[in-house]
Amino acid sequence: MKNLNIKIIISFLGLTSMLNGVFMLLAFPFSLYYNEYEKWGILQAGITTIAIGFILWFFNRNASKNLGKKEGYLIVTLGWLMLSFTGTLPYVYTDTIPVYTDAFFETISGYSTTGSSILTDIESMPKGILFWRSATHWIGGMGIIVLTVAILPLLGIGGMQLFMAEAPGPSADKMHPRITETAKRLWLIYFGLTFTEFFLLKFAGMTWFDAINHAMATMSTGGFSTKNSSIAHYSDFPLIQYIIIVFMFIAGANFVLTYFALKGKIKKVFNSEEFKYYFFGTIGVTLLITFLILNFQDPNLVSTLNHPKVWGVNESAFRHAAFSVVSILTTTGFVSADFTMWSFIITAIMFSLFFIGGSAGSTSGGVKIVRHIIMIKSSFYEFKKLLHPNAIIPVRYDGGSVPKTIIYNILSFFILYMLIFIVSSVLLTFFGLDFISAIGATASSLGNIGPAIGSVSPVDNFAHLSIPAKWFCSFLMLIGRLELFTVLILLTPFFWKKI
Amino acid sequence: MKNLNIKIIISFLGLTSMLNGVFMLLAFPFSLYYNEYEKWGILQAGITTIAIGFILWFFNRNASKNLGKKEGYLIVTLGWLMLSFTGTLPYVYTDTIPVYTDAFFETISGYSTTGSSILTDIESMPKGILFWRSATHWIGGMGIIVLTVAILPLLGIGGMQLFMAEAPGPSADKMHPRITETAKRLWLIYFGLTFTEFFLLKFAGMTWFDAINHAMATMSTGGFSTKNSSIAHYSDFPLIQYIIIVFMFIAGANFVLTYFALKGKIKKVFNSEEFKYYFFGTIGVTLLITFLILNFQDPNLVSTLNHPKVWGVNESAFRHAAFSVVSILTTTGFVSADFTMWSFIITAIMFSLFFIGGSAGSTSGGVKIVRHIIMIKSSFYEFKKLLHPNAIIPVRYDGGSVPKTIIYNILSFFILYMLIFIVSSVLLTFFGLDFISAIGATASSLGNIGPAIGSVSPVDNFAHLSIPAKWFCSFLMLIGRLELFTVLILLTPFFWKKI
Repeated sequence: MKNLNIKIIISFLGLTSMLNGVFMLLAFPFSLYYNEYEKWGILQAGITTIAIGFILWFFNRNASKNLGKKEGYLIVTLGWLMLSFTGTLPYVYTDTIPVYTDAFFETISGYSTTGSSILTDIESMPKGILFWRSATHWIGGMGIIVLTVAILPLLGIGGMQLFMAEAPGPSADKMHPRITETAKRLWLIYFGLTFTEFFLLKFAGMTWFDAINHAMATMSTGGFSTKNSSIAHYSDFPLIQYIIIVFMFIAGANFVLTYFALKGKIKKVFNSEEFKYYFFGTIGVTLLITFLILNFQDPNLVSTLNHPKVWGVNESAFRHAAFSVVSILTTTGFVSADFTMWSFIITAIMFSLFFIGGSAGSTSGGVKIVRHIIMIKSSFYEFKKLLHPNAIIPVRYDGGSVPKTIIYNILSFFILYMLIFIVSSVLLTFFGLDFISAIGATASSLGNIGPAIGSVSPVDNFAHLSIPAKWFCSFLMLIGRLELFTVLILLTPFFWKKI
Repeated sequence: MKNLNIKIIISFLGLTSMLNGVFMLLAFPFSLYYNEYEKWGILQAGITTIAIGFILWFFNRNASKNLGKKEGYLIVTLGWLMLSFTGTLPYVYTDTIPVYTDAFFETISGYSTTGSSILTDIESMPKGILFWRSATHWIGGMGIIVLTVAILPLLGIGGMQLFMAEAPGPSADKMHPRITETAKRLWLIYFGLTFTEFFLLKFAGMTWFDAINHAMATMSTGGFSTKNSSIAHYSDFPLIQYIIIVFMFIAGANFVLTYFALKGKIKKVFNSEEFKYYFFGTIGVTLLITFLILNFQDPNLVSTLNHPKVWGVNESAFRHAAFSVVSILTTTGFVSADFTMWSFIITAIMFSLFFIGGSAGSTSGGVKIVRHIIMIKSSFYEFKKLLHPNAIIPVRYDGGSVPKTIIYNILSFFILYMLIFIVSSVLLTFFGLDFISAIGATASSLGNIGPAIGSVSPVDNFAHLSIPAKWFCSFLMLIGRLELFTVLILLTPFFWKKI
């Protein structure tokens, strides 16, 4: 293997920055419209980011087009970091988040579509900045689509080859045109759904500014809200909460399936094993939680968020159960009520959902449902193997048999995920969190969810964490978002070895 | 496959019961010596158990000697259950544990070498019963040795083939004589070490009765003590605590290596990768905890167990750190001080040790170190694979390359372990535990450790659990002790299908 093609990496980072800067400039008109003092800071940030990007790109625009795997890994990880560092500039230049650690945390929480926040009074922030905050989610979501469609399958990470096998577009042997085509179609769907949700939210009673922000944060499964109490703010508008439930669910489904659904091929959607588990699993857990809220609510635990029962007790319990389940499962992290205040059993069920995640090919984070399906099937396979060691029993998924290497890949992914979870929880207690908040913050950051349990519960935020804890959570958000291997491979010595 | 050979299964259960009854009769002289009212109950229990065993064996003694895998699985699981049900008789007949659920919990906690107790005042129990309680540990330990040496490798569970490859005895192709020979030698070592520890404990200041009980509970990595405050009772006898640390460590090491060590082949011991990690890992974590106790002890958390500093603060911190680390790592569960009262970070580190376990080929439970080594190596392998998908990079262990099927087996084991952990934690909250006690009790029961965190911390016990919670924990102890697959395969539909 020859030297790394550093020039092409830098030129990609330049392009990424320029795109990011353009999005920043989109925040400017909002600030201008509301005539905010901070508009100049936002403009300055946008121009600086574009300038940095332009310089990086310009001096490397003639780079050789040779792109190996190593370059691929570096572009993905450094690209996300580049976004995150330049993405802090609007907060920095407007002085809306004075501590740099906080600004970085908020930004990477945005791009990684996590939605954990260090802001204690969101509603006092300038509108231009709030728009930028939601935009980081939306840009992150775009990045994830291109990552899932184009990059991860090529790099062979965590069985991603498998999930995207049915992606729309020309045949698989013409890789490049197919990928570009697929990415374009999925972006179109992403944009279209965001716009549709915006329209519906506006219609249901949100202001147009709140509607646009929440639509961006929903479709990216991000979870930043423009309200201090998140979606609990809309407790008197059950329709708004239902709209968000539906769109979170769509955002957590494979975009390729949404594409088929929009083309009227509903049968194809329900042929997907992952979707079936996702759909019926969500309904099942929602009904279970509804039942538990109605029958076993611990009288000592009272929700600190008010949720008036607009349409009666049963409806309210169902709505908040559905909202919480879908929000956690899709790793969005919006909050309609504090599920940690319902009962111990509900907290435990919800926390176990932290380790499930949404569908592959969506903007959701976490382990993802398809991996669980393969793991459970593979366990059954192991049991059968014990009785019939020489029998050849394939693990089947969506009608085909799953290659051993992919199963192996998925098992390794989950084990790495759990090991990182355990070690990181220990480290976070070292950085000052109590035990339960530490496991909550780790699971939430690694799964790109947002709220957690303990002192980082749905009604709290991450402001009180120590500086090292904030940086560490930022790191977890990054590696979780990029499917672990993509980032961690850069930390292995052999990555940097020349062969 | 033909019908199950039920007769041979029952005849084995009969033999197991008879052996168990003989051990019960060993408790009788203790009760007689202390002239306890309960001696007749113990005698009755022993005779009943032998009689049950004799009947089961006698009517099936002519069973065909055909033993397939299915019979193997049934003998192991039903054997442990048979021990546990007949093992309750001494408690039942003497009325020392009046509630049957409690008696069963205490008994299976004994045989599974867990050491969780429902007794609130241990010291008030008759000596004969206390001896029986420790004996269940010791019988369980004997069972584990034969299981590890003879049965699990044949059944091909969780990579056990690998760890016992170097077992002493004639060559591997003559399986039967070799196994019997190996089991006998390891039992001899087990007995010899128990006797040695008994002698040393007596010498260091224990009464001979306490010495014999603690020796049995140490070598089986069980953890039942005859004292209410466990080994914290001997805070004024640092020597006793050090002796127990050393023997817990030996009990958590591969008995095959102990065999080599006793033959003077120390080099062979340190050639074992697992032992190296076990040895240096234990030292490393102990020093870390010592450092944390001395420097970061949370002033708000005060140990509820007194541990006077006989030889000064540093020594005391080191001793309690070493004791706690070795006790949890080897899954013994003796307590010299309440580690949950030191600081959050120590609690978190200790709790992460719950998922490590001792060495394969020892009496310790849990995941076990060798599996972690293979998992971590296999993760590295996955990283390398990402860069060089076509390269053949073997996972090496102890100088040989590990077959893919065994790696796959180990990964599946760990995933199943973690899934069971998560689901069981949720169920335990449903059975009435708070969140932190639920994850503590699950990890402790599944790993056969004993004490946990929360309301089942080292200074608490399991008496306050609800009836379903106690049965559920008993089930976890059983499946944890028998390496998951052995028990769970009986719950799969295809196990009962005739082919």
